[in-house]
Amino acid sequence: MTAPADPLSAAHPTLARLLRDLESRWPSDGERVHRISRYALLPAGKLLRPLLLVESARAVGGGYEESLPAALGVEYLHAGSLVHDDVIDGDALRRGRPTVVARYGVADAVVTGDALIMGMFAAVAECADQGLPADRLLDAVRVLARAGVDLCRGQAMEAELCGDAACGLDRYLTMISLKTGALFRGSCHAGALLGGGDATAQRALTGYAEHLGLAFQMHDDLLPYTSEAAATGKSALSDTANGRPTFPVLMAYERADAAERDALRTALRGTLPAPDAFDAVRRVLDSTGALRAARERTRAEVAHAKNCLAELPPTEGCAVLAAIADFSADRER
Amino acid sequence: MTAPADPLSAAHPTLARLLRDLESRWPSDGERVHRISRYALLPAGKLLRPLLLVESARAVGGGYEESLPAALGVEYLHAGSLVHDDVIDGDALRRGRPTVVARYGVADAVVTGDALIMGMFAAVAECADQGLPADRLLDAVRVLARAGVDLCRGQAMEAELCGDAACGLDRYLTMISLKTGALFRGSCHAGALLGGGDATAQRALTGYAEHLGLAFQMHDDLLPYTSEAAATGKSALSDTANGRPTFPVLMAYERADAAERDALRTALRGTLPAPDAFDAVRRVLDSTGALRAARERTRAEVAHAKNCLAELPPTEGCAVLAAIADFSADRER
Repeated sequence: MTAPADPLSAAHPTLARLLRDLESRWPSDGERVHRISRYALLPAGKLLRPLLLVESARAVGGGYEESLPAALGVEYLHAGSLVHDDVIDGDALRRGRPTVVARYGVADAVVTGDALIMGMFAAVAECADQGLPADRLLDAVRVLARAGVDLCRGQAMEAELCGDAACGLDRYLTMISLKTGALFRGSCHAGALLGGGDATAQRALTGYAEHLGLAFQMHDDLLPYTSEAAATGKSALSDTANGRPTFPVLMAYERADAAERDALRTALRGTLPAPDAFDAVRRVLDSTGALRAARERTRAEVAHAKNCLAELPPTEGCAVLAAIADFSADRER
Repeated sequence: MTAPADPLSAAHPTLARLLRDLESRWPSDGERVHRISRYALLPAGKLLRPLLLVESARAVGGGYEESLPAALGVEYLHAGSLVHDDVIDGDALRRGRPTVVARYGVADAVVTGDALIMGMFAAVAECADQGLPADRLLDAVRVLARAGVDLCRGQAMEAELCGDAACGLDRYLTMISLKTGALFRGSCHAGALLGGGDATAQRALTGYAEHLGLAFQMHDDLLPYTSEAAATGKSALSDTANGRPTFPVLMAYERADAAERDALRTALRGTLPAPDAFDAVRRVLDSTGALRAARERTRAEVAHAKNCLAELPPTEGCAVLAAIADFSADRER
């Protein structure tokens, strides 16, 4: 049996189950933190990290039911982190509707993000009720806690790079490997642990996740220049307005002449009106051919990710993971 | 052997070890998130929650070394939560020096708080390296994750009560049982689990922690009226300025006549200058005798806490816990 065409569409059986289970665990009644958590979680995003955890578990012979709470848990951590991101950036829109901070204010956004983060660990521990052995679950807790700390390290590093178009591709790659890669790796590694995978399988899935995380973030950075704002659900200007040296900007900076580099540095310094800064960046992306180069590098990371899967037996879980890699760099949002 | 007089003084052997171990785990070098975490953790506060965890473990026959990482972990969660609290309240001083948000800004404060919360779970999992069985540690993870969620529920509830001097003592008690009590209960329960305590011992220590948490928060609420701001390290005006219906205010409201109630409601509504609001509250506290009544109720909670310990064998750990109860409602900061 082969995986359906798009593992990130709600028609995919694993994703459909995850969505159903997520909805049923977050009913619309309940007290304040619960209601705001629900607002942050539903309507659901791509559920990519839960999907990675479940399919990694299946790729090493584990089942869906037993790893389900942990799979939803990584979405809680992800959602909590996004809620806090929006507090930091002051972004008002996400997935096409008001962010938690825009709708409920800073206090509720900070507290709900914290509750979601803690909720992940409660969810992982809950897998013991599904019969998973405590040592596997404790290893998963450790892996996910470290992933969470790495995510924070990546966010702090992102802030340090902010406004600096000359920060260099290497520091950028370290940053996204932490900010985005860490939870991808954590999800796949935790799935491999919960599914009972051996050290080789754990390594293969963690390697896959590392490259997938890079590809995913690189593609994300490209979206403001290749997709309509309506599709991404956040303003295309946000990255530039916040002075973020994103992947295509850094690829352009490497290829740019002195005048173009100057234009990029100025655009990210926050002194221009946001639309002007965006247009200035866009012109250098065009003149240097950075967009095409960035897309090629993204596709190369996808290929690396899929290569890592060759270490595993060709199961359905593995096929879904390969399809996720393909779709991660070929999406509109 | 009896416990030294003040279990919350650095001269206490357990506390001295905790302090030493905390310092050695957070050296002053390291990257940004690590450095800011260190700033949030050191110089250390009272380390009350780590002390509760370790002494609860000892009270049921466990050891210091094996539960140490988890004990320090609950301090990470506590510190992370305070860092986020200060973001929410915009408080500039804590323990007599600039808060993390005042010194490093909102972005670093949010991210460092998150890293500290995640760091707790990594620390608990790390106890496996000390030879503690995985099932006990997983139970501790679950207990502490739920405590963390409860803490957030308490913070959200506190925000809901904000500005409302007429919210009533019952809602206040529910709120502090979550905001303060949850992590006290979590620490003692986790300690009982890690130390290998049976269900009776777990129940006794959780009951102890519940009453201790109430006493501790009630006393904390009294400090602005009984202690110098220099001793508490935060402005005595902060609670009133932030419109918090604290314990003595609610005790006063129950005892107040119509004019006094009106004065309390006005003082917490945020329309008066902070010193005037503080003075207005203080006058009603004096005229109603609420301060004395609040102190009596606090002492009653201390007595309840110590009664719970009667279920346990009279070990040194137990004696320290009893002394903590006494000192929790008899401190200047």
